[in-house]
Order: sequence, then structure tokens, then C-alpha cells
Amino acid sequence: MSKNDKKPGAEAADSRPEAKSPRTEARLPKGLQDTPAPEIRTTEAMLGTIKGVFEAYGFEPLDTPAIEYTDALGKFLPDQDRPNEGVFSFQDEDEQWLSLRYDLTAPLARYVAENYQGLPKPLRRYQVGPVWRNEKPGPGRFRQFMQFDADTVGAGSIAADAEMCMLAADTLEALGIKRGDYVVKIGSRKILDGVLERAGMSAKDKGQHLTVLRAIDKLDRLGVEGVRLLLGKGRKDESGDFTKGADLDQKQIDAIIEFVEASGGDRDQTLAALKTLVAGSAIGEEGVAEVTAMHDLLTAADFGSNRVVIDPSVVRGLEYYTGPVFEAELTASIKDKRGQTIRLGSVVSGGRYDGLVERFTGEHVPATGVSVGVSRLLFGLQLLGKCTGDETCGPVVVLVFDKDRLADYQKMVQELRGAGIRAELYLGSSGMKAQMKYADKRGAPCVIIQGGDEKERGEVQIKDLVLGAGLSKIEDRDEYKKKQAEAQFAVPEADLVAGVRKVLDRHKA
Amino acid sequence: MSKNDKKPGAEAADSRPEAKSPRTEARLPKGLQDTPAPEIRTTEAMLGTIKGVFEAYGFEPLDTPAIEYTDALGKFLPDQDRPNEGVFSFQDEDEQWLSLRYDLTAPLARYVAENYQGLPKPLRRYQVGPVWRNEKPGPGRFRQFMQFDADTVGAGSIAADAEMCMLAADTLEALGIKRGDYVVKIGSRKILDGVLERAGMSAKDKGQHLTVLRAIDKLDRLGVEGVRLLLGKGRKDESGDFTKGADLDQKQIDAIIEFVEASGGDRDQTLAALKTLVAGSAIGEEGVAEVTAMHDLLTAADFGSNRVVIDPSVVRGLEYYTGPVFEAELTASIKDKRGQTIRLGSVVSGGRYDGLVERFTGEHVPATGVSVGVSRLLFGLQLLGKCTGDETCGPVVVLVFDKDRLADYQKMVQELRGAGIRAELYLGSSGMKAQMKYADKRGAPCVIIQGGDEKERGEVQIKDLVLGAGLSKIEDRDEYKKKQAEAQFAVPEADLVAGVRKVLDRHKA
Repeated sequence: MSKNDKKPGAEAADSRPEAKSPRTEARLPKGLQDTPAPEIRTTEAMLGTIKGVFEAYGFEPLDTPAIEYTDALGKFLPDQDRPNEGVFSFQDEDEQWLSLRYDLTAPLARYVAENYQGLPKPLRRYQVGPVWRNEKPGPGRFRQFMQFDADTVGAGSIAADAEMCMLAADTLEALGIKRGDYVVKIGSRKILDGVLERAGMSAKDKGQHLTVLRAIDKLDRLGVEGVRLLLGKGRKDESGDFTKGADLDQKQIDAIIEFVEASGGDRDQTLAALKTLVAGSAIGEEGVAEVTAMHDLLTAADFGSNRVVIDPSVVRGLEYYTGPVFEAELTASIKDKRGQTIRLGSVVSGGRYDGLVERFTGEHVPATGVSVGVSRLLFGLQLLGKCTGDETCGPVVVLVFDKDRLADYQKMVQELRGAGIRAELYLGSSGMKAQMKYADKRGAPCVIIQGGDEKERGEVQIKDLVLGAGLSKIEDRDEYKKKQAEAQFAVPEADLVAGVRKVLDRHKA
Repeated sequence: MSKNDKKPGAEAADSRPEAKSPRTEARLPKGLQDTPAPEIRTTEAMLGTIKGVFEAYGFEPLDTPAIEYTDALGKFLPDQDRPNEGVFSFQDEDEQWLSLRYDLTAPLARYVAENYQGLPKPLRRYQVGPVWRNEKPGPGRFRQFMQFDADTVGAGSIAADAEMCMLAADTLEALGIKRGDYVVKIGSRKILDGVLERAGMSAKDKGQHLTVLRAIDKLDRLGVEGVRLLLGKGRKDESGDFTKGADLDQKQIDAIIEFVEASGGDRDQTLAALKTLVAGSAIGEEGVAEVTAMHDLLTAADFGSNRVVIDPSVVRGLEYYTGPVFEAELTASIKDKRGQTIRLGSVVSGGRYDGLVERFTGEHVPATGVSVGVSRLLFGLQLLGKCTGDETCGPVVVLVFDKDRLADYQKMVQELRGAGIRAELYLGSSGMKAQMKYADKRGAPCVIIQGGDEKERGEVQIKDLVLGAGLSKIEDRDEYKKKQAEAQFAVPEADLVAGVRKVLDRHKA
């Protein structure tokens, strides 16, 4: 019987032990992964820091469920070429289509439209949680991953966009990234539109417009020549796959490339260059005016060109952005374990999107926001040695020397826990050697042993596993004896907590 | 065109503004809900406390993805009458069935089976996260809710079960629930089986066995007479619906009721009574021996009958338990907002399940665990006034008196944030009255105002919204004037942070 010709759950019921069916294979669907303890701890520490900054900026947390009506989520995934793909969908009892959220912005739009009357305006909310993409998984590409967003909804003011750039910068610094080791870049959809208008491109051809956006968005990866090909006839990649281009003429391509390269270190200079490039285009001049206003606000709040730059090549691939767009990246040289320099890409990104709520209410609700790329940022922090949160040491393990005396051992465990020390009783059924191995595997700082002799003397043995591990390297006999005595020592039962504290203090970070 | 005869996503693409289709309705599927900021904060504070206790016990965090293969999850939902329902399922590209996890135990079993060789044994892990049930939602019944589990896998020792009861008790006390205001109850599937064996029930009739389990599990809600009916021919509820019973004879029913009522305050007494009830049944005697061992361990660790009792009526409805089962409930009188006493039910529950990994590997892997009912526990803590975490006050709002001076105002905001004070610039486009309303709605402790006059004098106005709200109640003219002066005062620009601190200190909890 094939697994696939039955309703869900049917094969599950069959595979219960009672049914004596063939064994089920324990496996995860591709693109999904389990997260082990160290990664959970470092992620939580990072998220805690980010939350702290977002809260300081006055954003409030909001949670929305994982499941939404498919039509309420809308369809704003980057890959517009496959409009029916990218989301996990299923039908409800009443046959309406439901989907797992693919980002946190679409549910926010639904939430705002649904609760518009009662909300503070503007609404400032942050949300952190998993999102799901039903896409082909690959290295570093997962079908479930975490997003961390902050959005200001109902604010047309350019000050809201400037603030998002400050938020990105302050967040990265709070995470331990030094000024100069990151940069926040501002681009503008309106300035781009002005350049395209001046180059004689029709604003009505949305498909061509999107192709141009995507081409510019790939500047980092493909370089200027690659972008030129994508703006023209198209480009064949290393694997031989051909991507059709925007089919612009040479003059148009030159104009766009000139625009993209107009970025300078200094914001004043870049603005002056952009002003010239869009002169005469209303939308382009509006864009320059907006970015100039952002520049002024940033300067007043002491966010200079060493933190936030204007970079026209930043356009972002998402169709729904309507004004300024921004992204932050780490500029510190990041090397992987083999010493290779890594291009990490943007770790925070966002922009203004004024049309997302309109499709529900018909009302124009301006909004702007940023999204932190949680996994990518964590990866960068790890490589930069800026991760925290994994200092939790393993529990003190009380070994079971004598199986009839579990209650005595349990009492010791409880005493340690009562003193605020992480501790546990060995709960397996193996002998002393395996118990020591278990304690090692758990990263225990020390183990507690009480055999018959110790019991008689009213003592417990404390064995320091960190010191113990170093013993084999000591060649000098006297030194060895001394260290051995330090690594394993007896204390009266009443001094159990004090003895363990002594070991913990030795190995404090 | 109906919404339902298309593939998912198709209607979503149509509903983009460009398509000029009718507006999408902003709504959530039934049984799903958004979580506002105060509830997120209190939940996080509660989860943080629970994590602290679980870590102290030596459990390590683990995360698994929301999506699993349907057959790997198996089917261990309480409602076995509808084996194909209860989970959200959908097919992958290769047509294999996927499901959203319905609990955290089934994914744990998959994880253990998949990674068995490399894991410490026993494995002690905790996990917190949402689970999904595709069930009919009702009051307090949601289709997405949070679970918080701790399990010890690979430990046959009864000490692992005793520890789960200690964990439950220590967790509730850490959350501020006083000793005596909660109780942990221990039951045993083996003792129940012994009683059923002595009453002449066939062990082979799994359906009848489950009906008996479910009947006993309803003692809390239905009382002894209700359980009697469910053990006999059946029971008609208030709405007239008839539930078929286990069809036992009177003698069998009497034996079960005697067993269920064998609970006493003192563990020694209850054990003695149970010993008599199962005398001669091997499985029953094994159960009593196990619970006696738990009793000894609990006593040694100072968990007396004032915290943990033995209650045979605790059987738990889940089929997969194989030994001791436990649940914790709040015994303090809990009243809702209208003064009605509320029966909350169990807030922590669990038990031993030795068969869950076997269906993957064929290997017998003993396991035991507890699950915290996050929403129910939070609800109880709220009613008991034990919730923390919602002390975060709203941000200081810098008002926009003069739209041309955004940069100055932004600078003030940044100064406050730099001093560790939650602050934001008003980012909407409304006038002063609406800005004040916004600040109220956000729970701002104070607002900052700088008009032209203040600017000339190099001052800012600080308006204390908490004091301000109390002004209208003051009748005495002098008192009013005094308080008014306190509620709104000017400071030199350089003293902005000090002035705001003064207000914050006034209202510190």
C-alpha cells in the first residue's frame, strides 16, 4: 500500500505499535530542522537584545497566529513569477483556503484593517516568530525560519523612515557591532522611478519595471556587468540557465548604471548627484526631497555618514515598497572557519509600503518598517565572536553509586537546586563508568559521589570534571598529585553546597 | 466565481489593488487569535520563570519545526474516535503528507529515534512553543495554543517520575503560588489495571479499557454519579446527547468507584488502601510498588503530602501512558471578575509513556514527562493576582508642535533613548489635541512639548500625564494650582533627561 493514496492520519493510525505494521521512519521533511540547545540560547540572547532596543524606541509587541486565510494574506512574496507557489496552504472544514504566514507584514496588514478603529495611530508594533515558505530548500535556505519586524503603521511622515534607519543602527550596536563595522544604506523607489522616467521607460509596464528592480537588486552578487546584461537582453549564469532581461536600450542601461553608481561615502555629495540625475522628473524630485529630509533628521540625531549612507543601488526586490527602502549590512571582514572571507548580505532590511492595508479597507494607510534577518545576523555575530547566551554550564550530576540509596541522592540534588545550582540525579540504569560519560556529555562542571565508605564517614566526594580533564596532560608527578587532590575531594555532607560552589567559582567565565 | 474552486493563492493574486477586484475581508479563521502586548509580556514573564526552574533541574532546551511528516507524528490525540481528524495536514511536492504538530511529545519521539546514537542517555529536554489542533473551537478552546513540556527519555527509573512531580511543585511555587494553594496528584495506570483485572475485566478489550479511562477522567466534571453512568450503560448530558458507556456490571462499577475514592490526604494511608484493592494482581501490585517508591523519594526530598498526594482518580485521558500519571491543580479559591468561583482544572499534567519511540526503532525507550498548560496557568495566575511582566510603561512621547522642527524633536527623543528611557517622536500628522490623545492611548508617563516661546527661552515643557489625569478630581483651588504646577513644568533643554526622570520616579511601582 502506497503512503500517498490515503487520507492524512490514516497511515499514522496504522503505524501504532498495536497494529504491528512496518516501522515508521523517523525523519524531517527537507528544509526543516531541529534547533539544539546552544543555538536556542544564543538566539534568545540576541532576540532579547533586539527587543530591548525596539522597546526603547516605543514599539509594542504583537503576536498573530501562524495560520491565516489565504486571501487575507495576499501574495507579496518576492517570487512573483510563481504566484501560486511559495506558501503552505490547506482547506478548512468549510472549504475556505488557509495558509501558513510567509512573513509578518501581511498578517500585520490584516490585523490593522480588522482593528483599525481602536488602534493608536500611528501603530508601532514589533513581532518576532517563525514564518514558512514552501520553496525549494537549499544550503542556508529553510522552509521555516524566524523573522523579527518593527513597523510604524499610519505614519506618512518621512521621520518614521529615518527612525527605522536609526533603529537598525542602534540594534546592531547593542549587539556589540562597533560603529564602522556596519552600515545602513538608504535607497528610494521614487528616485529610481525618476531615473527610469528620464530614460524614457513607460511607467505602465509593471513587468519590465519589476525586472529592472530585480536586476539592480542583484548588483552585489553579479557586479555591474551582470546587471547590464539583465537590463539588456538577458544573462546566462554559470550553470547555463538563461534569465531574460528587461530589454532596455543602451542609453537607458547607461542611465540606470550611472544612477546605481552615484553612491558616495558622504550623504551630501550623493544627494547632489541624485538631484542632477532626476532633474525634471516630478516623482524623482519628490524622492530626492524625501531622502534629503531623512538625511537632515539623521544628522540632527547624530547619525552621520559613518553609520547611514545613501546608496541608490539599494532598491529591494519586494514589489510592495513605495518610497524609501533601506538595508543594513556588516562591513567588518567576516571569515568562516576555514579563513575564507564571507559576503553575508543585508542583516536588516525594510522600507515604506503605503498600499498594504488599502486592499482591505480601501483606505490609504501609509506604513514603514524593517525586518531583521535573524538567522543571518546570528551567523554573522557568531563569526565575529559577538554571541552571548551560551555560558549556561551543564548541571551538577549526582551519581547513583548504590541503587538502593536513590532517596539520599535525590535529597542532595534538591539541596543543590535549592541553593540555585543547576543539578540533577543520574536517572539512567548504567554503571559508574557510563554515568561519568553521561556527566561529561552533559557538560557537568562536577559530579557528586557517595559510596558506602563516604556514607559511613558522613561525607560526599566532589569530582571536578574540568580539572579532571586536564590531569592527563600533567607530566610532573608532584604537580599531578596536587592537581588530582584539587580535582577530587571529600567534604562533610553538610558542606555539599559550599564544596560545589568552590568548583563553580574555579571555572567562572 | 467562487473562492473555493481555485488553487490556493490564485484569489490572493487577484485581490491585489492593481487588479481592482472587490476588497478582501480582514478576518481570522475561527479558533485563532491575535495576542496583544500586555498578554505577551505576562506570558513571557511566566515562561521565563518556568524556564528557570526547568533549567535548574538540568533540562536543556530543544526546538523542533512546526511541520512534520504525518506518519512520523503518529496519532496520539485524545480523541481516538475520529482518527483522521484533529490535525492540519497538507501534501508536499512529492505528495507525502505533512502535518502541523499537535503536541510536543510526538516530535520529541521522532527526534529521539532520529538521533538516538548521539544523544546523552537519558535525554532531558524542555520545549516551549505553539501546537495546532484542527478541532471545533469553543470558549477557551483554540486551534493554536502554547505548550511547555519537560521530558526525560531513556530513563526507566521511577525516580524520573518522582522528579516530574517535584518539578511541577517547584514551578508553581516559583510562580508565586503558595504551598497549600496547589496540589500535585499522582495516579497509576498499572494500579487501575490491577483493579480492573480483579473486577474480571478483559485486558484485551482496548476499546472498553479506554472508555473506562475516559469515564474516570471525567470525575471532576461529572461527579461520582456521572462516572457510574459512563461505566454502565451510558449517560445523557444536559443537551440531550447520549454517550455510550463501558457496559460494566454493578460489581465491576462498585470496584472502580471504590478505587477512585481511595484517595486520602495522607500518602501512607492511600497506599495502604490501594494495596488491599489490588492484592493478588501482579500488574496492580507492581503499580503500588512504583508509587510507593515515588512516595519515598518525595518524602526524602521534603515533598510531603501538603504538596504531593496520591489520587487514584487521576488517570489522564491519553492512551499512550503506561505507568504513573500526574497532574497539578490550583486549590486556592479562584474567583472570576464577577466573583464566581472557577474550577480551573489541571495546570500541569503528564506521566510515563514507554512505547512512543518503539514504533520507529523497535527499541523499548522508557520515558516520562510533564506538560504545562500555558494559557490555563496564565489565566489562573491572573485571577490570583500573581502575574508579572506588565510593568513596562508606555514611551515618553515628544510631541510635534511645529512641523518644521522635526529634527529638533527627533534629537530630544534620541537623547532620552540614550539615557535608557523609552521614548518616541509623534509620527502621525494630526494636531496637538490628537497627539495628546495618542500619548494617553500609548500609556505615556509624560509628553515633551517645545513651542516657539519655549525654544526662544531654551526650555522644554514636560507634562506628567498621570498627575494630569488626576487634576479634574481636585476641588480646592490652591491645591489644584499646586498640583497643576507639578503636572506641567518647564526645564532647560539641557535638563530634559533629569526632568523626565523626575516624572518617572514619581510613578515607579
